[in-house]
Amino acid sequence: MYQPFDVDTIIDYVRQHPEALKHLDTAGQLEAVEVGDGNLNLVFKVFDRTTDRSLLIKQALPYVRAAGPSWPMPAERAGFEARALALEYECAPGLVPEPYWFDEVLMLNAMENLVDHRVIRFPMMEGKRYRDLGATIGDFLARTLYATSDFALDAADKREIMKGFFNVELCRITEDLVFTEPYLPDAPRNRWNPRIDADVADFQADEHLKSQAAALKYRFMNASQALIHGDLHTGSIMANDHDIRVIDPEFAFFGPMGFDIGAFIGNLFLSGASHEIHSPDPEQRRSYRRYLIDEAKAAWSTFEAGFRERLADVSSPSWTSQPFQDEFIASVLRDTAGYAGCKMLRRIVGFAHVADLDSIEDLDERARAERIAIRIGRRLVSEHAQVASFDDIVAIAAEALEVHDG
Amino acid sequence: MYQPFDVDTIIDYVRQHPEALKHLDTAGQLEAVEVGDGNLNLVFKVFDRTTDRSLLIKQALPYVRAAGPSWPMPAERAGFEARALALEYECAPGLVPEPYWFDEVLMLNAMENLVDHRVIRFPMMEGKRYRDLGATIGDFLARTLYATSDFALDAADKREIMKGFFNVELCRITEDLVFTEPYLPDAPRNRWNPRIDADVADFQADEHLKSQAAALKYRFMNASQALIHGDLHTGSIMANDHDIRVIDPEFAFFGPMGFDIGAFIGNLFLSGASHEIHSPDPEQRRSYRRYLIDEAKAAWSTFEAGFRERLADVSSPSWTSQPFQDEFIASVLRDTAGYAGCKMLRRIVGFAHVADLDSIEDLDERARAERIAIRIGRRLVSEHAQVASFDDIVAIAAEALEVHDG
Repeated sequence: MYQPFDVDTIIDYVRQHPEALKHLDTAGQLEAVEVGDGNLNLVFKVFDRTTDRSLLIKQALPYVRAAGPSWPMPAERAGFEARALALEYECAPGLVPEPYWFDEVLMLNAMENLVDHRVIRFPMMEGKRYRDLGATIGDFLARTLYATSDFALDAADKREIMKGFFNVELCRITEDLVFTEPYLPDAPRNRWNPRIDADVADFQADEHLKSQAAALKYRFMNASQALIHGDLHTGSIMANDHDIRVIDPEFAFFGPMGFDIGAFIGNLFLSGASHEIHSPDPEQRRSYRRYLIDEAKAAWSTFEAGFRERLADVSSPSWTSQPFQDEFIASVLRDTAGYAGCKMLRRIVGFAHVADLDSIEDLDERARAERIAIRIGRRLVSEHAQVASFDDIVAIAAEALEVHDG
Repeated sequence: MYQPFDVDTIIDYVRQHPEALKHLDTAGQLEAVEVGDGNLNLVFKVFDRTTDRSLLIKQALPYVRAAGPSWPMPAERAGFEARALALEYECAPGLVPEPYWFDEVLMLNAMENLVDHRVIRFPMMEGKRYRDLGATIGDFLARTLYATSDFALDAADKREIMKGFFNVELCRITEDLVFTEPYLPDAPRNRWNPRIDADVADFQADEHLKSQAAALKYRFMNASQALIHGDLHTGSIMANDHDIRVIDPEFAFFGPMGFDIGAFIGNLFLSGASHEIHSPDPEQRRSYRRYLIDEAKAAWSTFEAGFRERLADVSSPSWTSQPFQDEFIASVLRDTAGYAGCKMLRRIVGFAHVADLDSIEDLDERARAERIAIRIGRRLVSEHAQVASFDDIVAIAAEALEVHDG
């Protein structure tokens, strides 16, 4: 029967689980800590002090942790995470935690514990640079998105996999929180810094912006291009100085590829905006923002190169046409721009914010950073259908972030 | 256990089926005829001579009837037809046969027998005009496509319905026969009139055309907009002088709306091309072609008006933006043009042809008609992304059909 664990009961569970033996001395001295900092789940790290090994257990709660039992959320989402992590691990081993087992009764996933990795959002607030961050994420995306698309899979195999990813409840969270509520003046879950009231009113009155956000929402709901991670912000990436991993694919479903790339890039730009305050020194600020833009560029160019390289060997004659491939990549780029913008705006006006901005305690200072992010987000959403190269995206970000080359 | 019926065994089946009593005097004098003329199924009409009532039974064979047992095709497709017909009947009663029962063991659908209706393709070869044909089909499409889209359904309800429509094998037929093989010089199932060898070679070498056909195929496989009929040619419409019904939804799945509208319109244009020979009198020919173009216009305008009328009452605030709605309709129009073109070309070069053209025995005459259809089909596929109003589609057809107003 399902029951949420605590740091004591999780140890009993691990001791009794046959799979755990492969990763821990389950008869030894075990110790557990709960480290969940996200919106949805319990996360336990279980250490074996005898052999100094460990594993991580992520258990879904039947409600949204950040909101409490009044916002129910089926614990079945752990199954989506299990299936997505297994596929990602197959396509991109070394870029995600190794999955150990999935318990469909207790709705938990046991996996590799990333011992000295940290969620990158927080170090990035202090100006931390990760070598090859963009290239690694671009590589992850080229691998996972290509492998689960019609270019790699037979239509029957793809539809068979799709049956495991009718992730209705978590898609609804995205539909509501990312695409719908931020554009509604009276959505009760919205919250924002009172210092930007006028900015919010202004964008919520922008009919063109709203029509473009609606088109992006419609595509999110209707373009089953590939198994996307679905929540690829900088809180879903963990790293140390020589290793980068993508975590938390519980939002995974078959959707538009650009949603993942856009989520990552949008979060780099959010970080860039927050350094308006986090980096008071103008030279340091400019330099870090240049780093962020370079990583965004690297993410796209690595994704594009990796995807094109795989497309060059595509087996179905339908997809070998070069103009078709070019137009396909161009459409993913347009989506990338639009989704990056949506993901930025929802973090300032919607229910779930980001620490990059919300950690800025002075509301006037925070508003300065938020206005920069709003400017980028609005332009990316409004102009996404006209974006013709990644330089167009860079130009929009660079203008607001005041990073100019040459 | 599954077994294919014949005209004797079907009567025993009907006599014993409890549902049949509602529609026939099952103890009376029953008579059956097999009338299947399609590519896939057995179709029995069972008459009750005592009360002069009847019903129709469509049984799926486990292979493609037109090809024989060497081309297996799961009989489970009868289930897709049953679910699709039930939904269509709910959205558009009076525009489809009334479903009576579905037998999931014997893979058959029992339904209303349309006593004096004929498949419209054949009378149209003789110049038959059906009053309100286009408007009726446009109404059917507005009703069924809107009701199964994200505009009418909650995302969870839509995905629940989608689970019943992973119509992999029949989608594969469309993917292969409509979008892939006609563009390949060496696809073994292709066949065409030897008199148009040069025309076929020319279009199979057209890189722009092939890239656009690939894009339309990709959209067919990835745009889960609504439950589409999936095979809405003039062989899937039956009518008498005062009643029009859409039949045979076994290809139904969640796909792009424009595929249905395009299939209908493309088949009107195929008919128009065939009248190059069927109507030797120039005035008569011009008049019938004008009728066909008017019906195509009526189909689109009725669909658009009906869809917009429903959209005006859409409940989710995401979809109320007028520019969003306009752009959505515009995208369905572009798809309509492209799919109309694909459906025309595949009937001349692919595996399955249409009687409109294949009934023309003289190969040189047939080639004259086919070249007209190829001209329209190529332009619709090549130029579909630039189509901005239905007049653009009409202009392409009217030019090749030599119908000019004024």
